Amino acid sequence: MLRRLGLAAATALTLSLPAFAEAVTDFRLANGLEVVVIEDHRAPVVTHMVWYRVGAADEPPGHSGIAHFLEHLMFKGTDELKPGEFSATVEAQGGDDNAFTSWDYTAYFQRVAADRLDLMMKMEADRMRDLQMSEDDVKTERQVVLEERSQRTDSDPDAIFGEQRRAAQYLNHPYGIPIIGWRHEIEQLDREDAFSFYRTYYAPNNAILVVAGDVTPDEVKRLAETHYGALEPTENLPPRLRPQEPPQLAERRLTFTDPRVAQPYVARSYLAPARESGAQEKAAALTILAELLGGSPTTSLLASALQFGEAPKAVWSQAYYDGSALDSGSFSVAVVPVPGVSLQAAEEAMDAVIADFLKTGPDPEDFARIKTQLRAHDIYSRDNVDGLARRYGAALTTGLTVEDVERWPEVLQAVTPEEVVATAREVFDRRRAVTGWLEQEEEESQ
Amino acid sequence: MLRRLGLAAATALTLSLPAFAEAVTDFRLANGLEVVVIEDHRAPVVTHMVWYRVGAADEPPGHSGIAHFLEHLMFKGTDELKPGEFSATVEAQGGDDNAFTSWDYTAYFQRVAADRLDLMMKMEADRMRDLQMSEDDVKTERQVVLEERSQRTDSDPDAIFGEQRRAAQYLNHPYGIPIIGWRHEIEQLDREDAFSFYRTYYAPNNAILVVAGDVTPDEVKRLAETHYGALEPTENLPPRLRPQEPPQLAERRLTFTDPRVAQPYVARSYLAPARESGAQEKAAALTILAELLGGSPTTSLLASALQFGEAPKAVWSQAYYDGSALDSGSFSVAVVPVPGVSLQAAEEAMDAVIADFLKTGPDPEDFARIKTQLRAHDIYSRDNVDGLARRYGAALTTGLTVEDVERWPEVLQAVTPEEVVATAREVFDRRRAVTGWLEQEEEESQ
Repeated sequence: MLRRLGLAAATALTLSLPAFAEAVTDFRLANGLEVVVIEDHRAPVVTHMVWYRVGAADEPPGHSGIAHFLEHLMFKGTDELKPGEFSATVEAQGGDDNAFTSWDYTAYFQRVAADRLDLMMKMEADRMRDLQMSEDDVKTERQVVLEERSQRTDSDPDAIFGEQRRAAQYLNHPYGIPIIGWRHEIEQLDREDAFSFYRTYYAPNNAILVVAGDVTPDEVKRLAETHYGALEPTENLPPRLRPQEPPQLAERRLTFTDPRVAQPYVARSYLAPARESGAQEKAAALTILAELLGGSPTTSLLASALQFGEAPKAVWSQAYYDGSALDSGSFSVAVVPVPGVSLQAAEEAMDAVIADFLKTGPDPEDFARIKTQLRAHDIYSRDNVDGLARRYGAALTTGLTVEDVERWPEVLQAVTPEEVVATAREVFDRRRAVTGWLEQEEEESQ
Repeated sequence: MLRRLGLAAATALTLSLPAFAEAVTDFRLANGLEVVVIEDHRAPVVTHMVWYRVGAADEPPGHSGIAHFLEHLMFKGTDELKPGEFSATVEAQGGDDNAFTSWDYTAYFQRVAADRLDLMMKMEADRMRDLQMSEDDVKTERQVVLEERSQRTDSDPDAIFGEQRRAAQYLNHPYGIPIIGWRHEIEQLDREDAFSFYRTYYAPNNAILVVAGDVTPDEVKRLAETHYGALEPTENLPPRLRPQEPPQLAERRLTFTDPRVAQPYVARSYLAPARESGAQEKAAALTILAELLGGSPTTSLLASALQFGEAPKAVWSQAYYDGSALDSGSFSVAVVPVPGVSLQAAEEAMDAVIADFLKTGPDPEDFARIKTQLRAHDIYSRDNVDGLARRYGAALTTGLTVEDVERWPEVLQAVTPEEVVATAREVFDRRRAVTGWLEQEEEESQ
């Protein structure tokens, strides 16, 4: 069944911005592969993505990092392709490719001239079920990942701070485990870990193909049948039941001190509802809340209160809502104080802004402006096919549907100031929060 | 192979206390069952225990509480015994029985007249492999466990506080999960969860039989062969590899506030080494450290500094070392302030005692006194066969050997003051600590 919807038609656009009505079509092959086609014929290019409904939160306990490790190994060979030949071929065709891993998904993408789609599908389908990896490949790539961890996490106090806060945020859910994996567990990952994960989860009935650009649904369907249609699904695919959080009843705080810290700051995250299929209202309210509190570097409430005026307390502030998750989202606030202002004072100032907001609610002009900005942002973002493809892929691997994605701009526009305040009251519960201080290590006083 | 050691002979006793030389013998049946016999012929009674090398930390993620749930279900029937008949039989013979679950083990015991050992073994061996449980049994017992959780945890702010602190202490290891299980996971436990756990882990090659009292090793061997000898071991018993902790780099704090709190207090736990087979020195130093800091309600350092004198700051204080664990132990300190002293002040006073100790080390008289007390305690405790049986069972299920248990009193006596200070310096690292405040909820000020 082909289903085609005009996206722009579904959203009530009142701005006179150059909107174009890209069409989104979705269907499923007999082996379970879900296919989403986003047509955009302005340029003869295409983005080809395969998203797997598996990520770091699906790893067996004690083996963190497999999902990301496997992402690396996917660039080793198959019966048809030598190690490294995949990316070399994409590059030789003038395209580029990459991959990324999250807690809820792993995705592979190439952007190429539209007439190379056939080749991309051939290669991507090939490595979905026929990956070859030698013990040597595994050993080499494990070193690469360990080096990546050294560079991106262990040598970066901000990253360590974030990792330790995240671990403290979740008492039970594997969202507390870093995507790249704990070092001592990465060191133990072996070929069998990666291969067994691959065999189970890399299968057409656990994948979503997203093709965006200068293509038609019929053409994508024909090519997908040709290349992906014959792949065997995984029988008895395990359901995605990850350990869920118990009630979080005790406020947590954490201090990370490191001599490499250049800029101390305070960061707090609260557990928050994620976007939920058919019920995105709270997520929409939290999206607007984040914009109101910390969305703009100049006009947001945190910035206005802390960064400007006669005696600014902060050089930077932020509010951020992450609602793209299968199980639960988070709402974060952070403040970087000006030199001479303590983290204690910065945190108190941040809390005063939040308390004030809960008391008075949003300023009507701010509220209207943010809605307009969100609408404009949505329209601008449609100009970017890659971004659209990512949007659908991320949604479909975190429990949402094509319809949820299409309805999202409407749901955002329908939020009322009262809903924002009510949701803020619910989410700003310190018992479900972790507040972290990142501090520069001082000389030992002993 | 029967191995017999005189325990008292192995420890250098310098106290003139009425020691008796109980003999410990250990051997293994062909199906893998390990057997420990502790002879004590002073009274015609016997303690019969079966310890399984499985506990709450071995549960599949998302299914917390299975080990304890199964402990309950073990009192349902077998082909030979009706539900409840096990305990009723023990009671009818004038004995008593019970069971307990930890993170590392689950154990069942009966204390009966020595001539009933045969019957105990018959019943315990029967339920090791032949447990029957109906869907109704499972449903009923799940309600019992949920009720137990309500009473012991959810209605007790101290227990919730402890549970939330423990969850914050472990970033990755399942020691952070409560033994009884998270409520939302207990609610989902089903017959298959319990049965599959039972079939895998309740087997002679995953169990230790401890018999203590008026028995001889030959008699125990004969009876064990008769009753346990024919039981099938579990093939491919999974190795006990639980997810281990990453480096803990950021000090954590936690506040639990509840209107039911009668007495606010501060409690801190540090990750600490556990007793390790063949290398119990650090654990011994920590055992003495706990005694020095908080062992005695009158003479310990925390009590002397905080509970006495002109302006006492605390009504109670404690230091406690838990080194009985397969993977990692913990060292805890807690202070209950007198009314009018804040938790902040209580914590500062507690930290001042620790800092002072690290600077000056133990007072030689205190140190000598504690060693004498530990030696006396060891000798007195040998008078309790139940306690001895538990000691061996707990040791053998947490990675120690009979020899480690026998050597422990010597290792304790060999600790030097310098080792205590060095180990304290290593363990008192706030980056690996969780400090919790339990506070009474105040009226909302809004």
